[in-house]
Amino acid sequence: MLKVHEGADIATLMNELGARARAAARPLAVATTERKNAALLAMADALEANTPDILEANARDMEAGRAAGLSTALLDRLMLDEKRVAAMAAGIREIARLEDPVGQVIAAWERPNGLFIERVRTPLGVVGVIYESRPNVTADAGALCLKAGNAVILRGGSDSAHSSAAIHACLVEGLVKAGLPEDAIQRVPVTDRAAVGELLKGLDGNLDVIVPRGGRSLVERVQKEARVPVFSHLEGICHLYIDKSARLDMAVSLTVNAKMRRTGICGAAETLLVDRAAADTHLVPVLDALAAAGCEIRGDEGVRVRFPSARPATEEDWRTEYLDAIISVKLVDGVGEAIEHIETWSSHHTEAIVAEDASAVERFFNEIDSAILLHNASTQFADGGEFGMGAEIGIATGKMHARGPVGVEQLTSFKYRVRGTGQVRP
Amino acid sequence: MLKVHEGADIATLMNELGARARAAARPLAVATTERKNAALLAMADALEANTPDILEANARDMEAGRAAGLSTALLDRLMLDEKRVAAMAAGIREIARLEDPVGQVIAAWERPNGLFIERVRTPLGVVGVIYESRPNVTADAGALCLKAGNAVILRGGSDSAHSSAAIHACLVEGLVKAGLPEDAIQRVPVTDRAAVGELLKGLDGNLDVIVPRGGRSLVERVQKEARVPVFSHLEGICHLYIDKSARLDMAVSLTVNAKMRRTGICGAAETLLVDRAAADTHLVPVLDALAAAGCEIRGDEGVRVRFPSARPATEEDWRTEYLDAIISVKLVDGVGEAIEHIETWSSHHTEAIVAEDASAVERFFNEIDSAILLHNASTQFADGGEFGMGAEIGIATGKMHARGPVGVEQLTSFKYRVRGTGQVRP
Repeated sequence: MLKVHEGADIATLMNELGARARAAARPLAVATTERKNAALLAMADALEANTPDILEANARDMEAGRAAGLSTALLDRLMLDEKRVAAMAAGIREIARLEDPVGQVIAAWERPNGLFIERVRTPLGVVGVIYESRPNVTADAGALCLKAGNAVILRGGSDSAHSSAAIHACLVEGLVKAGLPEDAIQRVPVTDRAAVGELLKGLDGNLDVIVPRGGRSLVERVQKEARVPVFSHLEGICHLYIDKSARLDMAVSLTVNAKMRRTGICGAAETLLVDRAAADTHLVPVLDALAAAGCEIRGDEGVRVRFPSARPATEEDWRTEYLDAIISVKLVDGVGEAIEHIETWSSHHTEAIVAEDASAVERFFNEIDSAILLHNASTQFADGGEFGMGAEIGIATGKMHARGPVGVEQLTSFKYRVRGTGQVRP
Repeated sequence: MLKVHEGADIATLMNELGARARAAARPLAVATTERKNAALLAMADALEANTPDILEANARDMEAGRAAGLSTALLDRLMLDEKRVAAMAAGIREIARLEDPVGQVIAAWERPNGLFIERVRTPLGVVGVIYESRPNVTADAGALCLKAGNAVILRGGSDSAHSSAAIHACLVEGLVKAGLPEDAIQRVPVTDRAAVGELLKGLDGNLDVIVPRGGRSLVERVQKEARVPVFSHLEGICHLYIDKSARLDMAVSLTVNAKMRRTGICGAAETLLVDRAAADTHLVPVLDALAAAGCEIRGDEGVRVRFPSARPATEEDWRTEYLDAIISVKLVDGVGEAIEHIETWSSHHTEAIVAEDASAVERFFNEIDSAILLHNASTQFADGGEFGMGAEIGIATGKMHARGPVGVEQLTSFKYRVRGTGQVRP
């Protein structure tokens, strides 16, 4: 691995990666679906064939990680075994099966003067992905960007450098086998942090969008400093609202799933809002079930009167993404106050309502401006795979271009094709 | 008009405008189509009813403009008369007739687990429009943003301050009559340039997108400094390519229209590429027609051999947007070299091919990455109205979110609505 520590050299290196990505993006944009899929399948084969090398590289990362005192959670994310490598290969094969978004006609109409106008999907260009030490992101992000006809520059965490390099070599092998430019998927070959700064500056106009995958501090830095568009979410302060019209059994099962299925993902519920009119019927059974599942309850006054073991919730709780087995609970005056609370405190990621009253559901769906709104379903469905997109490179909470799960379709732009028969403009 | 010259005050003032816009955006996002259209029609009525006031305000701007030595072209853009005010009112009535994009379901599908997912259009939020001294932009931009459910902050040029204020008063009258928040369309009430700087900083998170309308220096500054997304084009270096398969009469009429119909608009052709195989048949008739229409020709060596009155073209010409009766002309080896030239020099706005050979057209359409590509039609059709969008707030050459004409649809975002029957994620 190349190690460069002088700022100017890093800038030169990174801008060169950008120029090479831009050059690769042109043939990639016109590559056939067959060729892209052939590359993806060859990548999956290469991952399986090179499993021993990948595991050996991963063992070096794990050893260094243990020596550096990485937490158990981080070491688990970093760790690869045969099953995980096979899962990466399977994921890439699934991306090969997805419909190719490039060239899809998304709208078409004819003008009175006979001009026929089509809006057609095109690749975005060059995508930069910055992620922490999860080696599988190398495979997922590389494959997704390729399917959408984009060149990609991958900048993984330094802790997973050897693993990522071994995986990246398999991706390049697939590209070469299919006759696609190997610069279509590049990996930043240095661990220097200045490389991230160069990506954020946009590589001299050769980077079209950045996707940060990682913890809050990484995403915050990218959102603050990036001079190019960013697809990201800072946090997922997701709400579940139980209306007085909710079926009790559904309120219980959805709350427990939304909070406890996995507490560390961005679609996990962090705040439970309960209709005051259901306080005497729904509140205690729901909180009993949460507590039985091992969840800590933090409630407002009305909650604590009815559920005395709850700790008091403060304003700080309404703005906190616990990512843990903790939930804040508040009584609200119907769907109106639920909407007010959510619009005030939400991170605009995902919110759910449990209700049988259709008018409450419509208000919830119309008046809340979050990427994903669910009715009678768990917030944990906030996921590209669950949406049927096959795979996602992340979830975005911004309102520009991509919102919600970012899959192959969201990694495209469009252009207009206009067909005439000699029309001049009067 | 409020005049504030102290930096801190401007920041406070502008951030307050932003906070008020954000507050107005919420009721606006859920306003019915009927109410929005009622406001638009009331605005159009108010413009007509207040024509004398508007013309009086405009007379003050014109007088000050003359005293300040504004060019004839700028004074013409600034000038209003009864006909121009009536045209503004008619434009707003046309926007009222457009389909409401908000709430449109743009995709819907069901998952194997029974979840029903819809992608639904929502407003973007708060739009900032920065424009030079064209008072009609006040009416157009205000009305378009309202139709898409967005709050807007208008920052017009200081030369048109009185005219814009008078027009803005009519827009507010329409909002109030329809019971919509008057902060839905705000006008920056100071001419201080620091106000633009505050818009570029994003008004404390209360500005979602900026649309600059004006000359190159304005757009360049906005693109460089804005900390929020920008819908814009820096320039329109548009190309017309004449293939050897082109019909001669069409090549002549399209070239003359693309270059000379109006030379000052962004969709005007700036460079003509002629297939070397058509040099002896098409080149001279086309250049004769351009010259007869008053166009200066700048050609490469091959062009000048055949058309000796052409001045020599240098590399500088390939990168120049003349916005004038001047055209640069180059012979190319078929559609392949035409594509190479365009990908090298184009501003990715609009390019046209004149050809009867379908395979040349397909290569042109597939391999060029510009917002608008036309076959056998004039580049001057690059316009929201001509595309059937009713009106546009500008044309964008970026690849994010909006590309090409920016109409009501492009001024929206989307969210997901997911309907379940109690599904939990396994």
